[in-house]
Amino acid sequence: MTGRPLLVGQSGGPTAVINSSLAGILAEATRQPAVSAVYGLRHGVEGLLAEDWLALPSADPTLIAGLRATPSAALGSARHRLRDDDLDAALAVLRRHDVGYFLLIGGNDSADTTDRLGRAAAAAAYPLQAVAVPKTIDNDLPATDHCPGYGSIARYLAISAQEAALDTAAMRLTDPIKLVEVMGRGAGWVAAAAALGRQHTDSAPHLVYLPERPVTAERVLADVEAVYRHHGYAVIVLCENQTEPTPDGIRVLGAGDEPEWLDPFGHPYYPSPAAYLCRRLRADLGVRARYDKPGSLQRMARALISPVDEREAFAVGRAAVRAAVRGQGGHMVTLVRHSDAPYRVTTGLAALSAVANRAREMPPEFIGDHAARPVTAAFVAYAQPLLGGPLPRYTWLPEPGS
Amino acid sequence: MTGRPLLVGQSGGPTAVINSSLAGILAEATRQPAVSAVYGLRHGVEGLLAEDWLALPSADPTLIAGLRATPSAALGSARHRLRDDDLDAALAVLRRHDVGYFLLIGGNDSADTTDRLGRAAAAAAYPLQAVAVPKTIDNDLPATDHCPGYGSIARYLAISAQEAALDTAAMRLTDPIKLVEVMGRGAGWVAAAAALGRQHTDSAPHLVYLPERPVTAERVLADVEAVYRHHGYAVIVLCENQTEPTPDGIRVLGAGDEPEWLDPFGHPYYPSPAAYLCRRLRADLGVRARYDKPGSLQRMARALISPVDEREAFAVGRAAVRAAVRGQGGHMVTLVRHSDAPYRVTTGLAALSAVANRAREMPPEFIGDHAARPVTAAFVAYAQPLLGGPLPRYTWLPEPGS
Repeated sequence: MTGRPLLVGQSGGPTAVINSSLAGILAEATRQPAVSAVYGLRHGVEGLLAEDWLALPSADPTLIAGLRATPSAALGSARHRLRDDDLDAALAVLRRHDVGYFLLIGGNDSADTTDRLGRAAAAAAYPLQAVAVPKTIDNDLPATDHCPGYGSIARYLAISAQEAALDTAAMRLTDPIKLVEVMGRGAGWVAAAAALGRQHTDSAPHLVYLPERPVTAERVLADVEAVYRHHGYAVIVLCENQTEPTPDGIRVLGAGDEPEWLDPFGHPYYPSPAAYLCRRLRADLGVRARYDKPGSLQRMARALISPVDEREAFAVGRAAVRAAVRGQGGHMVTLVRHSDAPYRVTTGLAALSAVANRAREMPPEFIGDHAARPVTAAFVAYAQPLLGGPLPRYTWLPEPGS
Repeated sequence: MTGRPLLVGQSGGPTAVINSSLAGILAEATRQPAVSAVYGLRHGVEGLLAEDWLALPSADPTLIAGLRATPSAALGSARHRLRDDDLDAALAVLRRHDVGYFLLIGGNDSADTTDRLGRAAAAAAYPLQAVAVPKTIDNDLPATDHCPGYGSIARYLAISAQEAALDTAAMRLTDPIKLVEVMGRGAGWVAAAAALGRQHTDSAPHLVYLPERPVTAERVLADVEAVYRHHGYAVIVLCENQTEPTPDGIRVLGAGDEPEWLDPFGHPYYPSPAAYLCRRLRADLGVRARYDKPGSLQRMARALISPVDEREAFAVGRAAVRAAVRGQGGHMVTLVRHSDAPYRVTTGLAALSAVANRAREMPPEFIGDHAARPVTAAFVAYAQPLLGGPLPRYTWLPEPGS
């Protein structure tokens, strides 16, 4: 039997381990006679439509090891979704090169693109196995226990919130208020992870806000003041899309009525909630307030990845190739948890129709009743194993009076 | 002979390795019969005036190892300088406890405080050895080859600028412009370190601005546009105090004429130059521009420290105790470089009068002629050994046409 080519692309926001999924695909493809060659699409679907790809030697251990050690999407990513009127052109490209397998590593939009391309091929009687490979720091894909990429940003933030706290505790006499503004779409999975580093109940980060729980600036100011009066400093984590309630509905905290800017795609830009709150806190409390905004560094910091996350990212890549050659197109690879302790996970498959365009919110039973108690024990049991090992234990000298 | 107590404090902005200097002091104190006990001042000079300190067991290997693995200032830091009218009170405290040795780990202000306290003691015929231990990410202390703390932030930024570049290269179709706003007082030592991660001449970070070279927003916009047109994305590093020339003199870039806020000490707060430039770039180029502002994380990230820096921080702590018991008060410990390759450094001493209140700017021979060539080969030869080992080599897949 002669193999057929496999096309792979990466899509959406990159992560510290998305290249490990690409490496897993290469490692598995070399074992599968049904795959004749692997081509990497440049910038996902953009590369498919433009026939812009590069041949990836699937049996090159140096490349596989290099990809596993490199954050971000080595092929280039994109936010382009395949539109209905792109489908004919995309199929024509696949046909021209007799592509047998299409793998897209990404989030909800990528699952949708994979689903639509697979259906279009089936409708045109073109033999194609299209499989989605999960990836997102936002951890908001349904049908999978969690998403590759999440464990690493969770580890980064659990550690970084502790480090921001050490800095702020030391500098409390001049800079007692520190906000850490983190990523996260509509759900609080990312911000919640910062609470995992807490060494005891009332230690920092003292307050973690989740976008599922809209909050007014006035409420935040009162919360921060209470913590500051009690501890002499305050460390606050919130997401760049933290919400506030208004009479006209929910909006980004401090955004005012108008976005600061609309990009050429019409996506609104809001100013940073942390910058806004810092101005309010300075004015209200009369003390210095600063914010850290790690931005892309939180999803790129290779030195802080979760080893468990990296191995799982590799595993879902391999599983996707196996599914494709078995004829199980139309699915996304999932992670299935069998137990928390010991942590045991295997890969599975979910129908793309059950995944595409659906986001998984943080379940209410994971969310605490106040920013000072942002997550429940159930969330900790869920998320702790994803950190991939114990966190560093830092030395805090005893506080006066403790 | 009976020993006398040693007081140690930490001062100024914390670093990822300042606790290693404290650990070095404890490790050396236990070998010195002239030191009867070590007390750690809470929040530096504040703790001295308030007699607020804690006993530190100098022979506790767990504490020493814990401090060496913990970023930030475990004793608490302060920006308080000893004023003339504090000196009598400070001497009275020292006398009451028969303190024989006073060690302050910090930057320029701490050297000044150490100097003044030592002189006041001498004038009052009170036997005291006051020694300063260098520490600052800003690398701006005179008389020492470099400052403990600098190597670690340099390593953090050399790696993080590469990681921000990987992220931006992948996302160039939607988010092609990334600014990284870093710390740094008036000198560009910190920002310049980001250039050390460049893998070849025109790779990212494409532009690094230094406060020694004031630049207009219009010049930055033109530079960024040129890079963006050429590479399809642009990564820019600048410091939170980047300067711009105006007819009325130099000010913080984008600051406008008025600071956004004055803190209770009268220090001005300016809005972020990166946030300002992002707004201008979006308006000018019509593309999305984002910024990362790692803030305190850049000086706290334990996973990214330079091992050389950590060892030197420990060594200057030990050297300070040895100097104090030898009667060499009135000095700051220095690092003396004997060769770049192999890198060889020993500790030395400089008179506090030659250090206090003087800042070392980046020498002109270290500064390149344009933000695209921000540093010279002489700077690289100077700074590279401080990174403490090779940087990770990330895998970049070949660009189209390359």
